[in-house]
Amino acid sequence: MTTTSTGPVLFDVRDSGVAVVTLNRPERMNAWGGGLAAAFYRCMDRAEADPDVRVIVITGNGRAFCAGADMGDLDTIGGADTNGDTDVTKLVGERHPHFVTELRKPVIAAINGACAGIGLTQALMCDIRYAAAGAKFTTAFARRGLIAEYGISWILPRVVGWSASLDLLMSGRTFYAEEAKELGLVSDVFPPEELLPEVLAYAEDMAKHCAPSSMAVIKRQVHDDVLRNVRDASATAEKLMHESMQRPDFIEGITAFFEKRQPNFPPLKEED
Amino acid sequence: MTTTSTGPVLFDVRDSGVAVVTLNRPERMNAWGGGLAAAFYRCMDRAEADPDVRVIVITGNGRAFCAGADMGDLDTIGGADTNGDTDVTKLVGERHPHFVTELRKPVIAAINGACAGIGLTQALMCDIRYAAAGAKFTTAFARRGLIAEYGISWILPRVVGWSASLDLLMSGRTFYAEEAKELGLVSDVFPPEELLPEVLAYAEDMAKHCAPSSMAVIKRQVHDDVLRNVRDASATAEKLMHESMQRPDFIEGITAFFEKRQPNFPPLKEED
Amino acid sequence: MTTTSTGPVLFDVRDSGVAVVTLNRPERMNAWGGGLAAAFYRCMDRAEADPDVRVIVITGNGRAFCAGADMGDLDTIGGADTNGDTDVTKLVGERHPHFVTELRKPVIAAINGACAGIGLTQALMCDIRYAAAGAKFTTAFARRGLIAEYGISWILPRVVGWSASLDLLMSGRTFYAEEAKELGLVSDVFPPEELLPEVLAYAEDMAKHCAPSSMAVIKRQVHDDVLRNVRDASATAEKLMHESMQRPDFIEGITAFFEKRQPNFPPLKEED
Repeated sequence: MTTTSTGPVLFDVRDSGVAVVTLNRPERMNAWGGGLAAAFYRCMDRAEADPDVRVIVITGNGRAFCAGADMGDLDTIGGADTNGDTDVTKLVGERHPHFVTELRKPVIAAINGACAGIGLTQALMCDIRYAAAGAKFTTAFARRGLIAEYGISWILPRVVGWSASLDLLMSGRTFYAEEAKELGLVSDVFPPEELLPEVLAYAEDMAKHCAPSSMAVIKRQVHDDVLRNVRDASATAEKLMHESMQRPDFIEGITAFFEKRQPNFPPLKEED
Repeated sequence: MTTTSTGPVLFDVRDSGVAVVTLNRPERMNAWGGGLAAAFYRCMDRAEADPDVRVIVITGNGRAFCAGADMGDLDTIGGADTNGDTDVTKLVGERHPHFVTELRKPVIAAINGACAGIGLTQALMCDIRYAAAGAKFTTAFARRGLIAEYGISWILPRVVGWSASLDLLMSGRTFYAEEAKELGLVSDVFPPEELLPEVLAYAEDMAKHCAPSSMAVIKRQVHDDVLRNVRDASATAEKLMHESMQRPDFIEGITAFFEKRQPNFPPLKEED
Repeated sequence: MTTTSTGPVLFDVRDSGVAVVTLNRPERMNAWGGGLAAAFYRCMDRAEADPDVRVIVITGNGRAFCAGADMGDLDTIGGADTNGDTDVTKLVGERHPHFVTELRKPVIAAINGACAGIGLTQALMCDIRYAAAGAKFTTAFARRGLIAEYGISWILPRVVGWSASLDLLMSGRTFYAEEAKELGLVSDVFPPEELLPEVLAYAEDMAKHCAPSSMAVIKRQVHDDVLRNVRDASATAEKLMHESMQRPDFIEGITAFFEKRQPNFPPLKEED
């Protein structure tokens, strides 16, 4: 296991093939600011590039997952009158949260505590989410005179449906992990001390049993099929299926199944 | 508080900034007909135009929310052989129910009782829905030889998902508020006498804490992002965020947050 | 009642207007192979063409609904190095599972047991699904080095939402009927011995009370509205509504409603 402290974000690669990226500004509720964004991008890039990593888990250190944009920094921006734009860009960093949807590895958020504003948008751009009991959520934007930031108005209706999205985005109300589960925003809720072990067990099961090439192609398919009709989606899937049958992963998957043993899939390759 | 009786629809503006529009043909189960549609459009336009109104609540007087098209009128139409079309247009009125999605203020349906046919379509075009325990729902169309009217085949899958939509639309079966909640068609169910107070409390919280400009932009974003990809949605959001930071609402939102006081947002302006 | 054994698929037309198509290779868990696909298409075509059939139910004989592609056949394919493609096409048959969405009659899956891989894709392409308690589900693909086959990455997010889709497709984990209901993948779960009677009662209610022309148009609307905006969907619905008012089904629907009797709708016609 490699543990690296990269400033405000910690990075661990476990023997199981799971990378854990931990937001680590607990004294600021892991708010987006103070170099956290840049360090987060660096860690995510490392995880994506490392052949030993098959699944990525994001979590937070301390009481919060990510309390949103750092309001201290935002206060300054609010006061700026001419060059506010540059400051905002600096605060958010050079990427939009949806960059996570373009990674080829599965990304799971383990929401250990408060998850608000851009922190919620970033969590929603992960593929799957679990939360600690009692974790507090809010979109917050409407209560600060802001708008639905960085694609949350795109992703939230797909995750929780139309009514809940309009409710949560227009009211900016606070809600808790238990309601987040009812709405489908998180897949399950665990007692705080069991959250990370449960998410790691889930991630390790994927790392062990699922072909990295399959997970990469499937993630892309789900995204690309959003604006396709069913005929085009099915035709594309047929082409991708034939490609997958040329990969050694397919032979290994079928053979392991017949031999009732764990498969031994190769790491993700660039051309997969 | 201003209460106005506008024929078959009542219109109240409360001090809290919430307008209540009440369908008021209880003797006809608030069926769509007898001038109800025209009066409803007038009231909605008033609410949209009135700077004192920040949130709009729609409900029904008596046992029903809206039992659908007035079957008395429909009977006549059924009997008409040559100029049926004109009569239908007269019955439905000059607007399609989705006009509510184009209003810039949040619209909440408080479904006090029976909600059927075009009454259900109209309720679904509201942003958020609550229902009284025991309220009866049905799409009804397939049982009358009709089709999925006025966009219900667009909105229902977004609200309750694919399977439930095909079930409810093809079978035309009756279901109740409790199932509507399970399906996500309504956000919550309250005892009948608590429905309006609960919905008003929710609406008043929005009117008090959320910037009208934010709610208007966010409602538009959710609708416009439906047919966008995530990259375009996020790029548009960034542009809208920069615009929002030029409005006094943003300074007020941040300042109120830091001063831990209620914000004092200006009414919605035309250019917001 | 007509019962026909068509090789590996059974075909019954009941007096109630419901056709039951039963996958019948119980010794192979109704796996897709050995001529099952071709026989299934023949039965579905018969049901679609038969004017006495108003609703189609698909189920499986024995312990499984459909355990996926026949792994015996797949093993051969895996071993093939040059002409693998031809074999796959032979296995899957000449159609993609979404052909069911193009049928004009409602199709309901009664998932009596194991439902995996292409069996799950085929079930998801049905309009509505019910399951027997304890029935086991899995997408399976990622665990065999395969991809999201034949449109499952299109249909699954629409049925169960975004998070659950990515979870189920990328992890390939096993889940049960009870979770499938929570996720909205099936509308309800019944004890195994009550599954078919319950589904038949539901199907018979549709066959008895709903106009075949209405169900055909509504099914098309739901599909076509996926990539439309709400304005176009509503405009199309208005046109279809006027057409429906020219059909005798509409007069019969309204008349039966007023006379409080069961309607007597004509069978589906080609021009409906």
